[in-house]
Amino acid sequence: MKHFDYEFRVRYGDTDKMGISYYANYFVWFEAARTEYFRALGLPYTVCEEKGYFLPVVETSAKYLAPSTYDDLLIVRTSVAELRQSSMRFEYQVFKKEDQSKAYPILCTGFSVHVFVDRNMRPCRMPEEIRGIVTEHRLL
Amino acid sequence: MKHFDYEFRVRYGDTDKMGISYYANYFVWFEAARTEYFRALGLPYTVCEEKGYFLPVVETSAKYLAPSTYDDLLIVRTSVAELRQSSMRFEYQVFKKEDQSKAYPILCTGFSVHVFVDRNMRPCRMPEEIRGIVTEHRLL
Amino acid sequence: MKHFDYEFRVRYGDTDKMGISYYANYFVWFEAARTEYFRALGLPYTVCEEKGYFLPVVETSAKYLAPSTYDDLLIVRTSVAELRQSSMRFEYQVFKKEDQSKAYPILCTGFSVHVFVDRNMRPCRMPEEIRGIVTEHRLL
Amino acid sequence: MKHFDYEFRVRYGDTDKMGISYYANYFVWFEAARTEYFRALGLPYTVCEEKGYFLPVVETSAKYLAPSTYDDLLIVRTSVAELRQSSMRFEYQVFKKEDQSKAYPILCTGFSVHVFVDRNMRPCRMPEEIRGIVTEHRLL
Repeated sequence: MKHFDYEFRVRYGDTDKMGISYYANYFVWFEAARTEYFRALGLPYTVCEEKGYFLPVVETSAKYLAPSTYDDLLIVRTSVAELRQSSMRFEYQVFKKEDQSKAYPILCTGFSVHVFVDRNMRPCRMPEEIRGIVTEHRLL
Repeated sequence: MKHFDYEFRVRYGDTDKMGISYYANYFVWFEAARTEYFRALGLPYTVCEEKGYFLPVVETSAKYLAPSTYDDLLIVRTSVAELRQSSMRFEYQVFKKEDQSKAYPILCTGFSVHVFVDRNMRPCRMPEEIRGIVTEHRLL
Repeated sequence: MKHFDYEFRVRYGDTDKMGISYYANYFVWFEAARTEYFRALGLPYTVCEEKGYFLPVVETSAKYLAPSTYDDLLIVRTSVAELRQSSMRFEYQVFKKEDQSKAYPILCTGFSVHVFVDRNMRPCRMPEEIRGIVTEHRLL
Repeated sequence: MKHFDYEFRVRYGDTDKMGISYYANYFVWFEAARTEYFRALGLPYTVCEEKGYFLPVVETSAKYLAPSTYDDLLIVRTSVAELRQSSMRFEYQVFKKEDQSKAYPILCTGFSVHVFVDRNMRPCRMPEEIRGIVTEHRLL
């Protein structure tokens, strides 16, 4: 698994008066995609938190190439682009499921960088268990 | 103080593709109004939580009489309609600030019922301190 | 089809500092459930809007019986409880998918009442086409 | 006016189960700050839209240096960092109002790039009227 595809529908409340998806919602979708990515690895993020590891976002960014709107069936293609001692970087591509086979379907690209912290919000090294699983699946 | 007026602007992201404020956001505004109501009583809700009292919502409702939209300057008029052993009920009226003096300006009415719980989410009696402050201000 | 089950995961951003799903989000989920209900009837809400029919909410309500939290797999069981000349009423029950077979699994109940309006937001009668489809499926 | 300070309170629903403000909400606050920036220039964004100019976001980014939480009184310091033929770039700094006089108070920095489009979402040149007002106020 080099990437994971998270599929969802744009909700009515995700749109704004311009008739398109409000820009901040893409970051909500990135987060939902991360959740499903971890689950697909066999490592639900809820389990990480139970073990005392948290992954707050330290940087995020998005470029908007084309709009989406209500009821669009979208995919957030998610991959881990970088693994460091105590941080990791996800990259995202958003496109319409129906455009999947076409030439330039990307609506939005983005990334997020996360650091590992413990229950007291102090930075810590990425647990070996997590590093192992993520590394293994990146190489498949 | 029989009621408290919370004033705010509708944000772009609060609207939907119908061009009006999305219905769920009124509940977010009710909550912001409750926060300012408690602060006006001299009893910030953050202090309640520090003391170990939480006030989850057990019921809420809204009627939508007329729409609002982006950049409207709205007021949520908030009052405490009921005080029981371990619960309280807020009522809300939303209107445009500019319509304040006109005849039928109400855009939305609503209410919320809250129970007092402790840190373990177990129901508890309303603390006397809170009852005292709320009662006193209702009578002014 | 007497009811329709909409299934989804609670997102991280849906929670609040109390550690549970923020109350206003249930109304967002109700709306997503309505969308899937219409699609299941063979009448996507996007098609209604293209034909010039809109269904703004005029009243909504929720009772919160037990909390949900991040990553819970929830179901919103949705049914049409009332059809009038120009309005309809949906009812909702929210429960955890894993609790489906247990005795008292309901986390939240709610309803919403909608009126039919045209492109100019003027009330209109429910189109026969919609009445037909909804009536037919209620009787199955 | 080289910059504009937008002041607001973090709402309960803006937090997540980590106890801090959810990362996507900073982009909602950036947008509210832009709205107030335009108003301070004497050019409400609603007027821009009435004249047929829209300013969708084409890129945005945020770095999170320290968390904020419920009821924090925050400031988004907003400035126009770049004016091009058909685009403009805003920059943001978020800090607690009470930290304003201290040494390293910044919680979050970010930017957003916007293009001018007409009613049909076609890119267009920035109207001279807007360029004039923004340029003038940047030089004060």
